[in-house]
Amino acid sequence: MVKRRVVIIGGGAAGIDVLELLLRGQEGAEETEITLIKKETEGFFSSCGLPFALGGMYSITDLVLFEPNFYIDKGVDFRTGTEVTSIDLENSYVRVDTGEDITYDYLVIATGSKPFIPPIDGTNLEGVFTLWGREDGERLKAAMDAEGTNAAVVIGGGIIGLQAAVAFSKKGIKTTVVEMFPHLLPSILDADMASIVQKRLRKDVTFILGKLVSAIRGKQHVESVIVGEKEIPTDLVLLSAGMRPNVDIAKEAGIEIGERRGVVVDLSLRVKKGNSYLNNVYALGDCIEVTDAVTNRPRLSQLASTALIQARVVSNNLLGISSSYEPCLSPTVTAISGMQVGSVGVTSETAQRHGIKIKVGTAIKYTKARFFPTRKLIIAKLIFEASTEKLIGAQLISEETVAERINELTLGIKAGITATDIYMRERCFEPSLTMVEDVIVDAALKAQKQE
Amino acid sequence: MVKRRVVIIGGGAAGIDVLELLLRGQEGAEETEITLIKKETEGFFSSCGLPFALGGMYSITDLVLFEPNFYIDKGVDFRTGTEVTSIDLENSYVRVDTGEDITYDYLVIATGSKPFIPPIDGTNLEGVFTLWGREDGERLKAAMDAEGTNAAVVIGGGIIGLQAAVAFSKKGIKTTVVEMFPHLLPSILDADMASIVQKRLRKDVTFILGKLVSAIRGKQHVESVIVGEKEIPTDLVLLSAGMRPNVDIAKEAGIEIGERRGVVVDLSLRVKKGNSYLNNVYALGDCIEVTDAVTNRPRLSQLASTALIQARVVSNNLLGISSSYEPCLSPTVTAISGMQVGSVGVTSETAQRHGIKIKVGTAIKYTKARFFPTRKLIIAKLIFEASTEKLIGAQLISEETVAERINELTLGIKAGITATDIYMRERCFEPSLTMVEDVIVDAALKAQKQE
Repeated sequence: MVKRRVVIIGGGAAGIDVLELLLRGQEGAEETEITLIKKETEGFFSSCGLPFALGGMYSITDLVLFEPNFYIDKGVDFRTGTEVTSIDLENSYVRVDTGEDITYDYLVIATGSKPFIPPIDGTNLEGVFTLWGREDGERLKAAMDAEGTNAAVVIGGGIIGLQAAVAFSKKGIKTTVVEMFPHLLPSILDADMASIVQKRLRKDVTFILGKLVSAIRGKQHVESVIVGEKEIPTDLVLLSAGMRPNVDIAKEAGIEIGERRGVVVDLSLRVKKGNSYLNNVYALGDCIEVTDAVTNRPRLSQLASTALIQARVVSNNLLGISSSYEPCLSPTVTAISGMQVGSVGVTSETAQRHGIKIKVGTAIKYTKARFFPTRKLIIAKLIFEASTEKLIGAQLISEETVAERINELTLGIKAGITATDIYMRERCFEPSLTMVEDVIVDAALKAQKQE
Repeated sequence: MVKRRVVIIGGGAAGIDVLELLLRGQEGAEETEITLIKKETEGFFSSCGLPFALGGMYSITDLVLFEPNFYIDKGVDFRTGTEVTSIDLENSYVRVDTGEDITYDYLVIATGSKPFIPPIDGTNLEGVFTLWGREDGERLKAAMDAEGTNAAVVIGGGIIGLQAAVAFSKKGIKTTVVEMFPHLLPSILDADMASIVQKRLRKDVTFILGKLVSAIRGKQHVESVIVGEKEIPTDLVLLSAGMRPNVDIAKEAGIEIGERRGVVVDLSLRVKKGNSYLNNVYALGDCIEVTDAVTNRPRLSQLASTALIQARVVSNNLLGISSSYEPCLSPTVTAISGMQVGSVGVTSETAQRHGIKIKVGTAIKYTKARFFPTRKLIIAKLIFEASTEKLIGAQLISEETVAERINELTLGIKAGITATDIYMRERCFEPSLTMVEDVIVDAALKAQKQE
């Protein structure tokens, strides 16, 4: 029997997930020869864990979850330190930077994303960093720990930016976050919820919102950052202004790129060339566009959790189990300075931008019974489509229970639950663990009362 | 305008919830005159919090959440220390123990439940306790704290029995739990999951399983408990062998009582007399039978959370918002000695007893990423109907996240999610808060592999 050859480009979460699922699925199935090509030198590195390593929770090397030999020993042609320079879709091969051509029966494009570098002067100065992958992490950690690093500017107030800012501040570095949007975490929170996060952090971090950095200044090493009229002296700059899909080689091969700069795919995650989707080329992860389950518009969902589900779709399809990727809700959770912040579906702002009429309810309660000493505050904002009162978005902030609640609400949006359902359905109760009337019930009732 | 009169019998969670919802719902609606009649002297007492008060987490009086005046000030005819002796359905009045008759337009029966007293000798001895309400709690606490209380026997290995046993043991009292079923927590766990709970507690508590207590011995005060051939010396006995619905006055009035000894109700929670359901008499809470959403058979669901949802149905119906009570899943969670134990839907044992063919998967993982120092173990057992692979039951044990996960899985059962759905749907990921591949995904995959 001729072995079929699968070539995976990229060894981040998306590529590695496909690899692992193909290996798991092979038992008893047709044998597959797998080549994985990645630029980095590790087997698998968990980028999601980097901000906590900066904070000193563990060392960056703890995030190397697997060495290349782990995969090589399983019979995978696992190539690190190698770059794909072009894809030939016509003749089904990829060319790598050693000059070698590797043919494939099936190609998986998991090229990921790279930090967006704002088009301003000074981003190439010493002391200006991005945070993606092990090398970035190690460089930034060394700079943080260096003597003479007393001030830092973080450009971008998203999840990575805020987590890094907190780590800097804990090190005693005077830290300023500059966000061009009028509030923090604009992709997952509305202004009212973001202001709660900002209040909690403001004793440690200075915020400049709604303003662009116009230049980074210095001779060889960064010395200051220019924001409007202000010049902020700094020893270190972190660029965390979002991630751009890596689509260059796909684009050069003629694969369609969409309006959000990601690879266009169909429901089975096959790529598009000309008028048709190719039968043997898949793409997934940070480099593709997905359909938003609420707005039905293309969006990016650059999360390890999104990559994992997409990897299940791709590996199923490769293993002959027809599988499709459902429109995306991007459930997101993050931990910032003891706070857990979660979001799923659309924000009010996104809904309004897409012309969706909404009813919104925000409530504050406890995670446990009032008489229970270890209770924590929890704030929930729920967003319902106005006419059906179906849940389409949720935002939560607390010191506990946020991730699991986001998973519940993700399922709720998927199942089409309404504000009345939230009110009329039983939730488990134990005074040391929950309130008998939960915060989301209050939020749903408030939304219903909204005219 | 003539005020309509609503009489509520019972001031536990069920009765108080109806009262509060009627008060909230009255703004702008037809005015209602409400009488609530209860035996106890408090306004509202949280019985669910009692086991933690025994453990010293807070005082029993902290559980008196409202005094009678709280309701009297709102215009409620709130009668404590008063017992309803009979109901006259024909003439629409109740007779109370003062001899007075109180007429009603609508009657709400929320008479609750009382601890089951096993039919054995010695249950009336000094030193033998039950645990329901403030007085029980205070008596038991005094006995625990008394000098000379060195040994205790708990009859019944359910939630209350185990929580109390842990509180006794922490006080230095040598404690034995006797459960007639072959494993602990039989109403919410299968044997395999219950054995995990037992192992965790065995250094503090002695267990005798699958055996009945045949007698409690002593002269005036309890001295020992007889289990099979064994005589266990003890200073204190707690009877926690389940709760029986209080249905005497309903039964005497001709209201139908079902096979599980609870009041029979329709979907709107109206009681049955003869061949028909009465238009103006509702019942809810511990005293009624509900329909199990998986087996479609009558069952009890004696939880404060069940009472709350039923109170929403009853108060809605009384306020003119037609509302019905959906078949019950009884999501349950409890905290025992640092462990959180949760369950929803059917156990394997219940499914098998009802002839439901199942696929079952059990998995053990962490609550957070492997490289995250504060991760905890979590064990999940998922039960699927065999042919459709729809989720019909779940059991979880961990030190965290159990309650919120039970809420998610409750919604999952309701929404008809399958093992494949669990595998193919995105869950939020953050290494400090979740694993990228969750324990329930592993459990679902294992169930699917089961022949």
